[in-house]
Amino acid sequence: MDLNQLSLQYKNELLDRVIPFWLNQSQDKEYGGYFTCLDREGNVFDTDKFIWLQGRQVWMFSMLYNKVEKNPLWLECARQGGEFLRKYGHDGNLNWYFSLTREGKPLIEPYNIFSYTFATMAFGQLSLATGNSEYADLARKTFDIVLSKTANPKGKWNKAYPGTRNLKNFALPMILCNLSIEIEHLLDKAFLQETIDTCIHEVMDNFYRPDLGIVVENITDGNELSDTFEGRLLNPGHAIEAMWFIMDLGQRLGKPDLIAKAAKIAVDMVEYGWDPVYGGIYYYLDRKGHPPQQLEWDQKLWWVHIETLISMAKGYQLTGSEDCLAWFKKVHAYTWEHFRDNEFPEWYGYQNRRCEVILPLKGGKWKGCFHVPRGLYQVWKTLEKRDQ
Amino acid sequence: MDLNQLSLQYKNELLDRVIPFWLNQSQDKEYGGYFTCLDREGNVFDTDKFIWLQGRQVWMFSMLYNKVEKNPLWLECARQGGEFLRKYGHDGNLNWYFSLTREGKPLIEPYNIFSYTFATMAFGQLSLATGNSEYADLARKTFDIVLSKTANPKGKWNKAYPGTRNLKNFALPMILCNLSIEIEHLLDKAFLQETIDTCIHEVMDNFYRPDLGIVVENITDGNELSDTFEGRLLNPGHAIEAMWFIMDLGQRLGKPDLIAKAAKIAVDMVEYGWDPVYGGIYYYLDRKGHPPQQLEWDQKLWWVHIETLISMAKGYQLTGSEDCLAWFKKVHAYTWEHFRDNEFPEWYGYQNRRCEVILPLKGGKWKGCFHVPRGLYQVWKTLEKRDQ
Repeated sequence: MDLNQLSLQYKNELLDRVIPFWLNQSQDKEYGGYFTCLDREGNVFDTDKFIWLQGRQVWMFSMLYNKVEKNPLWLECARQGGEFLRKYGHDGNLNWYFSLTREGKPLIEPYNIFSYTFATMAFGQLSLATGNSEYADLARKTFDIVLSKTANPKGKWNKAYPGTRNLKNFALPMILCNLSIEIEHLLDKAFLQETIDTCIHEVMDNFYRPDLGIVVENITDGNELSDTFEGRLLNPGHAIEAMWFIMDLGQRLGKPDLIAKAAKIAVDMVEYGWDPVYGGIYYYLDRKGHPPQQLEWDQKLWWVHIETLISMAKGYQLTGSEDCLAWFKKVHAYTWEHFRDNEFPEWYGYQNRRCEVILPLKGGKWKGCFHVPRGLYQVWKTLEKRDQ
Repeated sequence: MDLNQLSLQYKNELLDRVIPFWLNQSQDKEYGGYFTCLDREGNVFDTDKFIWLQGRQVWMFSMLYNKVEKNPLWLECARQGGEFLRKYGHDGNLNWYFSLTREGKPLIEPYNIFSYTFATMAFGQLSLATGNSEYADLARKTFDIVLSKTANPKGKWNKAYPGTRNLKNFALPMILCNLSIEIEHLLDKAFLQETIDTCIHEVMDNFYRPDLGIVVENITDGNELSDTFEGRLLNPGHAIEAMWFIMDLGQRLGKPDLIAKAAKIAVDMVEYGWDPVYGGIYYYLDRKGHPPQQLEWDQKLWWVHIETLISMAKGYQLTGSEDCLAWFKKVHAYTWEHFRDNEFPEWYGYQNRRCEVILPLKGGKWKGCFHVPRGLYQVWKTLEKRDQ
């Protein structure tokens, strides 16, 4: 396997097939922002606008502009989406809605903390691309709100009765690992260091359970395991994705031990999550082997496999782990065979356990211009062995 | 096909295999109430208690006691569950939680209107079984609260931004069709008539769309179709189940035209929802053929097929429809082949599109002592051609 050749394969897929798809098919030239509900060929089948995906696409095109090429079409795509988000995405006090109508009217209230985190990512990169200090302010202020909400991210929409079973979820500390270095240029150094230390501690000392060798999705507020549906839940893709965020932090902080530990955990989670019968990584598992709540538990999702490629590529590049290389090869073959659409651009997102397409869309409510292009970019750059 | 023989098959399955399963495996002798998370063999794998399922099991055992046999074990099973529900199920003001811990501490807040409707059903039947007027009061007062919440069933947990897209959902009027005659003995006659008229109007004139020949899950508050994820959503099982509620109302009101219309709609929805490749009825569809949001859309669920058996049996018994009979035979063969567990009692709940078991449980967060035994009872009695 020629890694330079592979690197080029990821680069070409990104620049020749995936980015043109979003640039040409998703921009709403009339109202601004992006359509993300796109069928197999790229036709719009629904016009609602989801803040997660609006923010992620602003981030994606800004990042490519900042790191790959000063393409004015990319900048304009990012800028117009950023303007739509700035005008309509929040309630005036940076409480970011979950979704909007095509025209920008609020549809779903700001109950979801990740609308805030992806708005932060978006305006962080867009401020770098444009030099516009208003965007930098939006990112910094929204990040402060995210941190103020960590104890109860859903606020008044939280349906858990207070005090009976206080669980905390893996997703927020995991995302903060990535977000803190994403907007490093906007943060005070001491504050950045403190935030990073907290996230690493949460992920590696609390949600990772060395006795079980796995990362769990929910633990008690006293950092104990919980023998409940939520407490038994595993999301291997989440855990594996978090490990490349940790490897990035390890590089940033010069901590090879942290990188090696993250690479090892990532391999363990791929092995744990791999379906020995049909291949691919399960979406959800119960750590005690009980039936999970999620009916979609055995499905194979695009992002799980793409994030695994990033973690295995980084693990190999940074530590030389042969396990990472072997899993990279195996998941690469599986992912390109099952998720890439050889006839039309962009990739499929949702397969059943047998890796048959169950939703023939290229974008929807949760799949947008994010995991596929970010993954192609990350693997391209990692296999090139350049700095990210 | 000998319908008397079939009737006996349903009766024996109910009384010899399904009811003993719940009677013996689900009762919590220490704290009261019922365990519903039971694996294939009936072992408890999680002890949380879900108000939907607590209420439904109280109803089931009370109903069997009232209509089948004065079995003291059934009455005691209903009574102890009713006491657990009365003591711990609500906040003191008949706001019914969604779930509790094993001991009865509130876990999830009263955001879900169906916790209220199933509590009403439970105490309505239990009041008949016991003659206890306190239970009758609980049912009547909770029913009043349900009706007061129809405009915004989720209350403060509603995440829809007010005014942008006001949709109403099929499930509540559908359940009220059934619930109003369930607690008929507790209601004022004029009020009952008005409630029934409103429900029938909502279901048959608003959610049923004669131009499309289908029942949709969500419409605007002005009774228009909505070209959105929610507005395009179809849940064939829901629509088919509602049609036997309507047939029951048609019998109650002496309206053969209403019965014939409901039987015809039920057949249309079975035909619409049937999977021509692997058989069985899809869980969700998009009426325009776009990808639905639900990743589980192509799965085959037990309740969909059992409710279809009831509707087809009633449609045939009440109207003589040959279509109903033909579909009854087809769905009967499919359901008994795929959902019945021939080795251990009770039935499987969750199959993938190919009708392979994906969750080998007999009960969980949503599957309890309800659709299987209610369906067996209804088909038994319908095929016997006795009054229900």
